[in-house]
Amino acid sequence: MNISHIEHIGIAVKDLHAAIPYYETVLGLKCYNIEEVANQKVRTAFFMVGQTKIELLEPTSEDSPVSKFLETKGEGVHHIAFAVDNLQASLDEVESKGVRLIDKSPRGGAEGLNIAFLHPKSTGSVLTELCEKGQ
Amino acid sequence: MNISHIEHIGIAVKDLHAAIPYYETVLGLKCYNIEEVANQKVRTAFFMVGQTKIELLEPTSEDSPVSKFLETKGEGVHHIAFAVDNLQASLDEVESKGVRLIDKSPRGGAEGLNIAFLHPKSTGSVLTELCEKGQ
Repeated sequence: MNISHIEHIGIAVKDLHAAIPYYETVLGLKCYNIEEVANQKVRTAFFMVGQTKIELLEPTSEDSPVSKFLETKGEGVHHIAFAVDNLQASLDEVESKGVRLIDKSPRGGAEGLNIAFLHPKSTGSVLTELCEKGQ
Repeated sequence: MNISHIEHIGIAVKDLHAAIPYYETVLGLKCYNIEEVANQKVRTAFFMVGQTKIELLEPTSEDSPVSKFLETKGEGVHHIAFAVDNLQASLDEVESKGVRLIDKSPRGGAEGLNIAFLHPKSTGSVLTELCEKGQ
Protein backbone atom coordinates (compact mmCIF):
# COMPACT_ATOMS: atom_id res chain seq x y z
CA MET A 1 0.00 0.00 0.00
CA ASN A 2 1.30 3.41 -0.91
CA ILE A 3 0.04 6.27 1.33
CA SER A 4 0.90 9.64 -0.22
CA HIS A 5 -0.36 11.93 2.56
CA ILE A 6 -2.99 12.46 5.23
CA GLU A 7 -6.02 13.41 3.13
CA HIS A 8 -8.06 14.67 6.08
CA ILE A 9 -8.69 14.57 9.81
CA GLY A 10 -12.35 14.10 10.71
CA ILE A 11 -13.55 15.94 13.83
CA ALA A 12 -16.98 15.25 15.36
CA VAL A 13 -18.95 18.35 16.40
CA LYS A 14 -22.47 18.81 17.70
CA ASP A 15 -23.15 21.93 15.66
CA LEU A 16 -21.24 22.81 12.51
CA HIS A 17 -22.07 26.49 12.60
CA ALA A 18 -21.08 26.79 16.25
CA ALA A 19 -17.75 25.07 15.52
CA ILE A 20 -16.67 26.87 12.34
CA PRO A 21 -15.82 30.29 13.90
CA TYR A 22 -12.97 28.82 15.99
CA TYR A 23 -11.31 27.43 12.86
CA GLU A 24 -11.80 30.64 10.91
CA THR A 25 -11.29 33.36 13.52
CA VAL A 26 -8.73 31.75 15.83
CA LEU A 27 -6.79 29.41 13.52
CA GLY A 28 -7.19 31.65 10.47
CA LEU A 29 -8.39 28.83 8.20
CA LYS A 30 -11.08 29.24 5.55
CA CYS A 31 -14.15 27.01 5.32
CA TYR A 32 -14.26 26.37 1.56
CA ASN A 33 -17.02 23.73 1.37
CA ILE A 34 -20.06 22.56 3.31
CA GLU A 35 -21.52 19.31 2.06
CA GLU A 36 -24.06 16.78 3.27
CA VAL A 37 -23.08 13.12 2.89
CA ALA A 38 -26.38 11.26 2.99
CA ASN A 39 -24.98 7.72 3.22
CA GLN A 40 -22.96 8.66 6.31
CA LYS A 41 -25.73 10.82 7.80
CA VAL A 42 -23.42 13.77 8.34
CA ARG A 43 -23.05 17.37 7.27
CA THR A 44 -19.39 18.28 6.72
CA ALA A 45 -17.34 21.48 6.63
CA PHE A 46 -13.87 21.56 5.08
CA PHE A 47 -10.73 23.62 5.73
CA MET A 48 -7.41 23.18 3.92
CA VAL A 49 -4.20 23.10 6.00
CA GLY A 50 -1.20 22.45 3.77
CA GLN A 51 -1.95 19.22 1.92
CA THR A 52 -4.45 17.99 4.55
CA LYS A 53 -8.08 18.90 5.11
CA ILE A 54 -9.84 19.29 8.40
CA GLU A 55 -13.35 17.84 8.02
CA LEU A 56 -15.86 18.81 10.69
CA LEU A 57 -18.66 16.25 11.00
CA GLU A 58 -22.11 17.08 12.34
CA PRO A 59 -24.68 14.26 12.50
CA THR A 60 -27.88 14.77 10.54
CA SER A 61 -29.76 11.95 12.26
CA GLU A 62 -29.90 10.32 15.69
CA ASP A 63 -28.75 7.03 14.16
CA SER A 64 -25.72 8.60 12.47
CA PRO A 65 -22.42 6.95 13.50
CA VAL A 66 -21.29 10.43 14.54
CA SER A 67 -24.28 10.77 16.91
CA LYS A 68 -23.16 7.59 18.64
CA PHE A 69 -19.59 8.87 18.82
CA LEU A 70 -20.73 12.18 20.35
CA GLU A 71 -22.85 10.37 22.94
CA THR A 72 -20.05 8.12 24.12
CA LYS A 73 -16.90 10.21 23.59
CA GLY A 74 -18.07 13.79 23.10
CA GLU A 75 -16.67 16.20 20.52
CA GLY A 76 -13.15 15.57 19.23
CA VAL A 77 -11.10 13.76 16.63
CA HIS A 78 -13.28 11.09 14.98
CA HIS A 79 -11.01 9.58 12.29
CA ILE A 80 -7.85 9.95 10.22
CA ALA A 81 -7.98 9.46 6.45
CA PHE A 82 -4.96 8.40 4.41
CA ALA A 83 -4.77 9.01 0.65
CA VAL A 84 -3.87 5.88 -1.34
CA ASP A 85 -3.55 5.38 -5.07
CA ASN A 86 -5.54 2.15 -5.44
CA LEU A 87 -8.22 1.81 -2.79
CA GLN A 88 -9.56 -1.67 -3.57
CA ALA A 89 -6.06 -3.14 -3.79
CA SER A 90 -5.16 -1.39 -0.51
CA LEU A 91 -8.23 -2.84 1.22
CA ASP A 92 -7.39 -6.33 -0.05
CA GLU A 93 -3.80 -5.92 1.13
CA VAL A 94 -4.61 -4.77 4.67
CA GLU A 95 -7.31 -7.45 5.01
CA SER A 96 -4.74 -10.09 4.02
CA LYS A 97 -2.59 -8.74 6.88
CA GLY A 98 -5.38 -9.35 9.40
CA VAL A 99 -7.06 -5.94 9.51
CA ARG A 100 -10.83 -6.03 10.01
CA LEU A 101 -12.60 -3.89 7.40
CA ILE A 102 -15.75 -1.85 8.00
CA ASP A 103 -16.08 -1.42 4.24
CA LYS A 104 -14.91 -4.31 2.08
CA SER A 105 -15.21 -2.20 -1.05
CA PRO A 106 -15.06 1.55 -1.73
CA ARG A 107 -18.11 3.76 -1.37
CA GLY A 108 -18.71 7.43 -2.14
CA GLY A 109 -17.58 10.01 0.40
CA ALA A 110 -17.52 13.81 0.58
CA GLU A 111 -15.66 15.82 -2.05
CA GLY A 112 -16.05 13.13 -4.72
CA LEU A 113 -13.67 10.70 -3.01
CA ASN A 114 -13.96 6.93 -2.89
CA ILE A 115 -13.55 5.91 0.73
CA ALA A 116 -13.48 2.89 3.03
CA PHE A 117 -13.07 2.54 6.79
CA LEU A 118 -10.87 0.11 8.71
CA HIS A 119 -12.10 -1.09 12.08
CA PRO A 120 -10.46 0.67 15.06
CA LYS A 121 -9.99 -2.69 16.79
CA SER A 122 -7.37 -3.41 14.11
CA THR A 123 -5.75 0.03 14.02
CA GLY A 124 -4.73 0.83 17.60
CA SER A 125 -8.15 2.35 18.39
CA VAL A 126 -7.80 5.05 15.71
CA LEU A 127 -10.79 4.93 13.34
CA THR A 128 -8.97 4.92 10.01
CA GLU A 129 -10.20 5.75 6.53
CA LEU A 130 -8.45 5.05 3.26
CA CYS A 131 -9.47 7.15 0.28
CA GLU A 132 -8.70 7.78 -3.36
CA LYS A 133 -9.85 10.37 -5.87
CA GLY A 134 -13.08 9.37 -7.63
CA GLN A 135 -12.99 8.56 -11.35
CA MET B 1 -1.54 33.47 12.78
CA ASN B 2 -0.20 31.69 9.75
CA ILE B 3 -0.51 27.89 9.86
CA SER B 4 1.53 26.30 7.06
CA HIS B 5 0.58 22.64 7.59
CA ILE B 6 -0.27 19.97 10.14
CA GLU B 7 3.12 19.24 11.66
CA HIS B 8 2.03 16.05 13.41
CA ILE B 9 -0.81 14.03 14.85
CA GLY B 10 -0.09 12.69 18.35
CA ILE B 11 -1.50 9.24 19.14
CA ALA B 12 -1.48 7.83 22.68
CA VAL B 13 -0.41 4.20 22.98
CA LYS B 14 0.24 1.97 25.97
CA ASP B 15 3.30 0.30 24.47
CA LEU B 16 5.36 1.87 21.68
CA HIS B 17 6.91 -1.37 20.52
CA ALA B 18 3.56 -3.13 20.40
CA ALA B 19 2.08 -0.26 18.36
CA ILE B 20 4.84 0.30 15.79
CA PRO B 21 4.34 -2.91 13.73
CA TYR B 22 0.83 -1.84 12.60
CA TYR B 23 2.22 1.41 11.20
CA GLU B 24 5.14 -0.29 9.51
CA THR B 25 3.68 -3.59 8.32
CA VAL B 26 0.08 -2.62 7.56
CA LEU B 27 0.33 1.05 6.60
CA GLY B 28 3.79 0.71 5.08
CA LEU B 29 5.25 3.69 6.97
CA LYS B 30 8.77 3.80 8.38
CA CYS B 31 9.58 4.62 12.00
CA TYR B 32 12.51 7.01 11.52
CA ASN B 33 13.01 8.26 15.09
CA ILE B 34 12.37 7.14 18.67
CA GLU B 35 12.94 9.86 21.22
CA GLU B 36 12.21 10.37 24.91
CA VAL B 37 10.84 13.79 25.87
CA ALA B 38 11.59 14.09 29.58
CA ASN B 39 9.56 17.24 30.27
CA GLN B 40 6.42 15.62 28.85
CA LYS B 41 7.17 12.20 30.41
CA VAL B 42 6.69 10.38 27.11
CA ARG B 43 8.64 8.22 24.71
CA THR B 44 7.79 9.02 21.10
CA ALA B 45 8.03 7.24 17.75
CA PHE B 46 7.79 9.15 14.46
CA PHE B 47 6.56 8.25 10.98
CA MET B 48 6.43 10.66 8.02
CA VAL B 49 3.25 10.75 5.90
CA GLY B 50 3.53 13.43 3.20
CA GLN B 51 4.29 16.66 5.05
CA THR B 52 2.81 15.45 8.36
CA LYS B 53 4.29 13.21 11.04
CA ILE B 54 2.48 10.61 13.08
CA GLU B 55 3.85 10.76 16.62
CA LEU B 56 3.12 7.77 18.84
CA LEU B 57 3.24 8.70 22.53
CA GLU B 58 3.94 6.18 25.30
CA PRO B 59 3.98 7.44 28.88
CA THR B 60 7.21 6.95 30.82
CA SER B 61 5.65 7.65 34.21
CA GLU B 62 2.32 7.16 35.95
CA ASP B 63 1.94 10.94 36.32
CA SER B 64 2.53 11.58 32.62
CA PRO B 65 -0.34 13.49 30.97
CA VAL B 66 -0.52 10.59 28.51
CA SER B 67 -1.04 8.11 31.38
CA LYS B 68 -4.05 10.11 32.48
CA PHE B 69 -5.36 10.23 28.90
CA LEU B 70 -4.98 6.45 28.52
CA GLU B 71 -6.80 5.84 31.82
CA THR B 72 -9.80 7.97 30.91
CA LYS B 73 -10.04 7.65 27.13
CA GLY B 74 -7.89 4.68 26.16
CA GLU B 75 -5.57 4.56 23.17
CA GLY B 76 -6.28 6.91 20.27
CA VAL B 77 -5.65 10.38 18.88
CA HIS B 78 -4.23 12.58 21.64
CA HIS B 79 -3.53 15.91 19.90
CA ILE B 80 -3.11 17.75 16.61
CA ALA B 81 -0.09 20.03 16.08
CA PHE B 82 -0.11 22.93 13.64
CA ALA B 83 3.13 24.42 12.29
CA VAL B 84 3.30 28.21 12.66
CA ASP B 85 6.08 30.61 11.77
CA ASN B 86 6.16 32.68 14.97
CA LEU B 87 5.06 30.69 17.98
CA GLN B 88 5.11 33.38 20.69
CA ALA B 89 3.23 35.85 18.49
CA SER B 90 0.72 33.09 17.62
CA LEU B 91 0.16 32.33 21.32
CA ASP B 92 -0.35 36.01 22.10
CA GLU B 93 -2.80 36.31 19.21
CA VAL B 94 -4.97 33.32 20.11
CA GLU B 95 -4.96 34.34 23.80
CA SER B 96 -6.18 37.80 22.79
CA LYS B 97 -9.05 36.02 21.00
CA GLY B 98 -10.11 34.26 24.20
CA VAL B 99 -8.29 30.95 23.88
CA ARG B 100 -7.04 29.46 27.15
CA LEU B 101 -3.36 28.51 26.93
CA ILE B 102 -1.77 25.52 28.64
CA ASP B 103 1.65 26.98 27.81
CA LYS B 104 1.93 30.76 27.79
CA SER B 105 5.36 30.58 26.22
CA PRO B 106 7.15 28.02 24.04
CA ARG B 107 8.96 25.04 25.52
CA GLY B 108 11.10 22.33 23.98
CA GLY B 109 9.39 19.38 22.33
CA ALA B 110 10.50 16.33 20.38
CA GLU B 111 12.55 16.69 17.18
CA GLY B 112 14.00 20.04 18.25
CA LEU B 113 10.70 21.92 17.93
CA ASN B 114 9.45 24.74 20.11
CA ILE B 115 5.92 23.83 21.15
CA ALA B 116 2.96 25.06 23.18
CA PHE B 117 -0.46 23.58 23.90
CA LEU B 118 -3.86 25.27 23.76
CA HIS B 119 -6.52 24.08 26.19
CA PRO B 120 -9.10 21.73 24.65
CA LYS B 121 -11.89 23.67 26.37
CA SER B 122 -11.09 26.50 23.93
CA THR B 123 -10.57 24.36 20.82
CA GLY B 124 -13.71 22.27 20.42
CA SER B 125 -12.31 19.50 22.66
CA VAL B 126 -9.34 18.85 20.37
CA LEU B 127 -6.09 19.13 22.34
CA THR B 128 -4.14 21.46 20.04
CA GLU B 129 -0.42 22.15 19.84
CA LEU B 130 1.26 24.97 17.96
CA CYS B 131 4.90 24.47 17.02
CA GLU B 132 7.78 26.10 15.22
CA LYS B 133 11.25 24.95 14.28
CA GLY B 134 13.80 25.51 17.04
CA GLN B 135 16.55 28.08 16.52
